[in-house]
Amino acid sequence: MNRAYRLRRRPDGDLAEGDLELVSEELPELAEGQALVRTELLSLDPTNRIWMSDIKGYMPPVPIGAVMRGLGIGEVVESRREDMPVGAKVSGFLGWQEYCLADDARLEAPLSVLPEPLPAPLPAFLGALGHTGITAYIGIDLAGLQEGETIVISAACGAVGSVAGQIARERGARVVGIAGGPEKCAHAVEALGYDACVDHRADDWREQLDAATPDGVDVDFENVGGEIMDHVLMRLNIGSRIALCGMIADYNAYGSTHHPVGLRNVGQLIMQRATMIGFLVLDHADRFEEAITHLATMLGEGKLVYDETLVEGGIAAAPDAYAQLFTGTNVGKLLLRVAE
Amino acid sequence: MNRAYRLRRRPDGDLAEGDLELVSEELPELAEGQALVRTELLSLDPTNRIWMSDIKGYMPPVPIGAVMRGLGIGEVVESRREDMPVGAKVSGFLGWQEYCLADDARLEAPLSVLPEPLPAPLPAFLGALGHTGITAYIGIDLAGLQEGETIVISAACGAVGSVAGQIARERGARVVGIAGGPEKCAHAVEALGYDACVDHRADDWREQLDAATPDGVDVDFENVGGEIMDHVLMRLNIGSRIALCGMIADYNAYGSTHHPVGLRNVGQLIMQRATMIGFLVLDHADRFEEAITHLATMLGEGKLVYDETLVEGGIAAAPDAYAQLFTGTNVGKLLLRVAE
Repeated sequence: MNRAYRLRRRPDGDLAEGDLELVSEELPELAEGQALVRTELLSLDPTNRIWMSDIKGYMPPVPIGAVMRGLGIGEVVESRREDMPVGAKVSGFLGWQEYCLADDARLEAPLSVLPEPLPAPLPAFLGALGHTGITAYIGIDLAGLQEGETIVISAACGAVGSVAGQIARERGARVVGIAGGPEKCAHAVEALGYDACVDHRADDWREQLDAATPDGVDVDFENVGGEIMDHVLMRLNIGSRIALCGMIADYNAYGSTHHPVGLRNVGQLIMQRATMIGFLVLDHADRFEEAITHLATMLGEGKLVYDETLVEGGIAAAPDAYAQLFTGTNVGKLLLRVAE
Repeated sequence: MNRAYRLRRRPDGDLAEGDLELVSEELPELAEGQALVRTELLSLDPTNRIWMSDIKGYMPPVPIGAVMRGLGIGEVVESRREDMPVGAKVSGFLGWQEYCLADDARLEAPLSVLPEPLPAPLPAFLGALGHTGITAYIGIDLAGLQEGETIVISAACGAVGSVAGQIARERGARVVGIAGGPEKCAHAVEALGYDACVDHRADDWREQLDAATPDGVDVDFENVGGEIMDHVLMRLNIGSRIALCGMIADYNAYGSTHHPVGLRNVGQLIMQRATMIGFLVLDHADRFEEAITHLATMLGEGKLVYDETLVEGGIAAAPDAYAQLFTGTNVGKLLLRVAE
């Protein structure tokens, strides 16, 4: 039997009870060319919320009735395909379910077999050495961050932000984070090496940000959007770059009756001759190897602190775990352990 | 005597009576190194509104009490400097006044002497062969517009838009304009060669724009901002570029108690991996000659229709003439004739 979350209704605002349904379904007999993968770790990402909505996104929305899309890592437990022997670890769009049928003709994208032996702990391949770490690497590079420049990174302790901050530090930049709450800000400075971190839950966060960027902002690594981004726009220097990676502040408005607030200070891109670069890690597959090599080297040299919030509780816990992304409870990469 | 508009108060919303004061002042005796320029043509531009506000702009705001900043062309009528003989035509920041003291130490930027004989009518040097035409040329180039792509140009019949549309057509793009009212839209298609033009005053302008861009939008040459831009963002294709030239919809909110509405669809830059390039023509002085040569060639070959709205009435008419930019009454370059 397979337990899976199927999308029953598109969320209006926060993901609510009834939007997803946990169903138990019989597993099929394997046909030639198929394998069965037991999900071990499920990656929970802000972009999951995008996939739930019928908007103009970068992938088709999850169809109503389908298993919720999600990245994960699992182990091949049965196989009728040569490239995926039993016992192999695979990663890809396993979905919010306990078992994934690895059938290239049915999946949105083929699964990848992980190298053996693994050069780092398994969770790292969904985080610092996986799509979020690579996203950080690509974003810093697209922004052309230079030594001595000031970079602001929102969601500074998140899966992407925490890695971006450390790459930025390695490049010799002044690295200013924005995070929610004093604990996260302390962690950003003490563990991740940010030069400063602004608590956006403090009443005076705007003044804090101004004080932390006395020479303005050369690069904004933007993960949040909304009023935080709008204020960062007012700090931009001439010739600055915005690596537009995520806008989690808007995601709960997607497909919703609630509009996002809207950015009022985009005109600063003219005033400061700034460039905003929207990007997706998926477009940069030709650089994954380069990125992973770089990140693994940093990890090996002790230059990359790798945070994760690993939620136990099996597949049933997926919606509650996912909600941490929007309340900001998680630190670093948010993962759900679906099976040992 | 010199009649000049001095800024007395920063506008809150539209420019209102009392914000500028028309004063009559005695002209000074010329010192060595000075010349006196009689303003003939004053360029009226949306950016004038930016200069009136104490915001983080690309030039310092016009100080309270100072003569309003403005570009213009005039003739040297008295001179104690060798590079500006009496009778020479000069262009630059002459200000909203009848006479400008050409003293490099006092002006924000030195005035330029125009070539003689003039290769085109004088007004062209504030329009198609001046800063607005060059802006169009640079913007199309920064956006990397390719043959066969679809470009949308807001304020399609404005000083910048009308030239941008014709350069885009020359590049072999599908050129879609957005303008206010059926007359302007007809003009855009019939005189300026747009493939289609959407009337943003029509109730169904969004549907019109969708219909005019069946293959989506590859380049947005953005002059307006606000809800029009927000809808164009929803039409972007993967890898599209936005040349962010102006956001006139916001300018009356600058320094005002009224907020601009804000852009809600900036997240599409992520979804479509789009890049937004804020730019100012002033940064590209090293390409002015190239741009002017290109535009003059187009003009000579009959490939560039040059529209202007030339308001008579002398310096006193400047505020009323300027207001046309915000009501959309002008077609093409808006100029005020200050003197013959």
